[in-house]
Amino acid sequence: MKLAVIITLKKDVLDPQGKVIEQTLQNMGINSLKNLRQGKYIEIELDELDEKKAHNTVENICKKLLVNLIIEEYKITKI
Amino acid sequence: MKLAVIITLKKDVLDPQGKVIEQTLQNMGINSLKNLRQGKYIEIELDELDEKKAHNTVENICKKLLVNLIIEEYKITKI
Repeated sequence: MKLAVIITLKKDVLDPQGKVIEQTLQNMGINSLKNLRQGKYIEIELDELDEKKAHNTVENICKKLLVNLIIEEYKITKI
Repeated sequence: MKLAVIITLKKDVLDPQGKVIEQTLQNMGINSLKNLRQGKYIEIELDELDEKKAHNTVENICKKLLVNLIIEEYKITKI
C-alpha cells in the first residue's frame, strides 16, 4: 500500500523559502501571484494490505520522525 | 484560486534523502517499510478566477523556476 504525506508549515509560521520563491517569480514578471508556501511531500510504500493499519503506521512515522508538530502540520492520503 | 504542485524525482533517479529517512525508520523498528521517496510540495495562490488560465500560469512557473525537468516531474492539482 502506498501513502503520501504532505507536510506544511502551520499557517502562522513564517515561510522564508516560500517568500523567496514568491519574490523571484514576481521579479520574473508573474504578477497574478497572491501567495506561495512550500512544504514537503513524502511517498511511503508499506508492506501492509490493511488500510487502517497502514494509515496508523504512517501516522506513527510522522509523529516520531518526519513532522515537527510545533511548527508543522501533515496530511496523509492514499495514492 | 489555489493550486498545489507536487514535485518528485523521476522514478529512475536516486533519492539519497529518501533513502536516509527509510534507513532511519528501519533502525527505529518500523519493518513494514518497502520504499520511501521524498519530494517537494508547493501551494500557490493566484489572483485568477479562470481555472485553465491559473493552471497555465502554474505550469509556466514550474517549467521556468520550480522544476528541474531533467530529473524531476510535477503534478498540478486544484485545492
